[in-house]
Amino acid sequence: MESLTVELGVRSYPIHIGAGLLARGELLQPHLRGSQVCIVTNETVAPLYLARVESMLGGRRVSTVILPDGEQHKTLDTVTIIYDRLLELGFSRSATLIALGGGVIGDMTGFAAATYQRGINFIQIPTTLLSQVDSSVGGKTGVNRPLGKNMVGAFYQPQCVLIDTATLNTLPERELKAGLAEVIKYGLINNPRFLDWLEHNMAALLRRDPVALAASIKVSCDEKAAIVAADETETGLRAILNLGHTFGHAIETAMGYGVWLHGEAVAAGMVMAADLSWRMGLLQQGEAARVKRIIASAGLPVAPPAIAPDIFIRYMSKDKKADEGKIRFVLLEALGKAAVKEGVDSSLLAATLGAGAQLTAG
Amino acid sequence: MESLTVELGVRSYPIHIGAGLLARGELLQPHLRGSQVCIVTNETVAPLYLARVESMLGGRRVSTVILPDGEQHKTLDTVTIIYDRLLELGFSRSATLIALGGGVIGDMTGFAAATYQRGINFIQIPTTLLSQVDSSVGGKTGVNRPLGKNMVGAFYQPQCVLIDTATLNTLPERELKAGLAEVIKYGLINNPRFLDWLEHNMAALLRRDPVALAASIKVSCDEKAAIVAADETETGLRAILNLGHTFGHAIETAMGYGVWLHGEAVAAGMVMAADLSWRMGLLQQGEAARVKRIIASAGLPVAPPAIAPDIFIRYMSKDKKADEGKIRFVLLEALGKAAVKEGVDSSLLAATLGAGAQLTAG
Repeated sequence: MESLTVELGVRSYPIHIGAGLLARGELLQPHLRGSQVCIVTNETVAPLYLARVESMLGGRRVSTVILPDGEQHKTLDTVTIIYDRLLELGFSRSATLIALGGGVIGDMTGFAAATYQRGINFIQIPTTLLSQVDSSVGGKTGVNRPLGKNMVGAFYQPQCVLIDTATLNTLPERELKAGLAEVIKYGLINNPRFLDWLEHNMAALLRRDPVALAASIKVSCDEKAAIVAADETETGLRAILNLGHTFGHAIETAMGYGVWLHGEAVAAGMVMAADLSWRMGLLQQGEAARVKRIIASAGLPVAPPAIAPDIFIRYMSKDKKADEGKIRFVLLEALGKAAVKEGVDSSLLAATLGAGAQLTAG
Repeated sequence: MESLTVELGVRSYPIHIGAGLLARGELLQPHLRGSQVCIVTNETVAPLYLARVESMLGGRRVSTVILPDGEQHKTLDTVTIIYDRLLELGFSRSATLIALGGGVIGDMTGFAAATYQRGINFIQIPTTLLSQVDSSVGGKTGVNRPLGKNMVGAFYQPQCVLIDTATLNTLPERELKAGLAEVIKYGLINNPRFLDWLEHNMAALLRRDPVALAASIKVSCDEKAAIVAADETETGLRAILNLGHTFGHAIETAMGYGVWLHGEAVAAGMVMAADLSWRMGLLQQGEAARVKRIIASAGLPVAPPAIAPDIFIRYMSKDKKADEGKIRFVLLEALGKAAVKEGVDSSLLAATLGAGAQLTAG
């Protein structure tokens, strides 16, 4: 088992990573407060792992909420199901919520924990690669609105994140690849050596080699924890975690939530960000091509679906990273060095948006 | 004008109190960030004060959301109206929300500000006595669920609270009295000299003497600010602010939200808390009688409506101040000294609940 700490003063918390951690109740129990515990999961994950997590809780009064699976259910209405179950159970402020599942479950459970009686304890047990390397770390919680993803939410940190890498054995191939998009992101934004490592180990990751997976998750969590510790509420540095996300959110919104997986949209978005970085003279053409190659090697899309440029721009400017109508992009100044840029030349942006077909062919 | 600061480190903020402050744009403008401002108010307050607040904002792009008036609208559905208006307007993270109205508007606007894009600036302009002395100070935001009041919310501090005491001239008599319940509370829990002052000045307060009102608001805000500074998220001391609220919430829930005003329910609840304190040997009978007398002098109810004791207890144990099923009461150890007590003898509680009729008569 490997462990790290997200350093946030009184809100610091550990992340434990390893195969078989769902048998290690002693990792979970110190983070429970009171005897009321509710596990929130979904219809897909419950048959696989719910019983195992229940057996970690040492005889406490454990309740469960089993939600429908899918990004289209990441809504206030679904969170209300959690609130009302907790109220029916008479759960107090000293109750603990456990999120068992992927990013949608983690984001909604975290938001419910942030807002039920103005905040109760919660624990993340992410079961997808995407949530293990990204959404379970850093305290972003929330839900979608029809006019935008993650537009309602809170910064709210868990007490503990427990990552059992063995849960990845039941993850569908497509979701494994989607998770690799965020893993690659950490190399691109801040860690060139990790990028080299990924190029040599992508095949091992795709065949779910447990040692390679655990190593990539550890590096990803280390990278994210350091950035979150420096800028918890995204007033500056943390924005670099959104590499590929401005383009990616537009893809997800334009296609309808859940048609493209988040990681797939971010993958295409990172290729677009690299393309734009090259057009702006920040990256060499060969470096942009390398970004595309590594993303392709993970079996991820390297171009957006067919979306008219004006639609693309409209959805990007609704992105919450937009400030006063100006679109902000996270771009690459080198492989392993990201920076936030505003006021991008509109003809260069148009070229990147228009290059979609080329990119698909290229 | 009088000013005080709620001392919460980086989240500290000023409260300005005085007649005519809605003409003082310079008090508001330093707390705006960016140019996007949205005023949230209701159908009752908008015709009275909306134009005046708009004119304080110095030519910024000001939008408004006008909600229906009343506690029954303090719901997630109503907050969603705010979210979706902000999204339609393309408002970013640097937008500012201004709550203009009573506690319901302040609580919902604060919750919308806490959760829109994970947190934007907000400013409180409370226009009722209750919100000026209580809900606008201290950062409690939230909405009701059918199973309980304020069960969904966040601790989220405003940038500034602006109290124009002249707005009280348009406040209905019944709401003025309801606000006095919380004013009296500060005397009961922590300030025996203020209690003496209130006994001598109640008539002046009821005839809306501006000097008396401003003085009572200042003392109330000082008391609340000190308690909030010591315990922002109610892990201990802050609970004493709930004197009368465990009984009061049960009254509000049993009668249906909005039938009894919050302050009326708290007034009867404080008399009940004093009665229980006397039965437990904490207060002298004469002190409990004095509590009842001062509350009666404000024209407030000194007994609950007819609610069967078992119903009363059921609603109290759903109260969020309840821990693991045990009901916690804020009781008085003296006039001017409150303390939280658990494990109250059930026969003494039954006597207090059964004394309702006597209290009404007495």
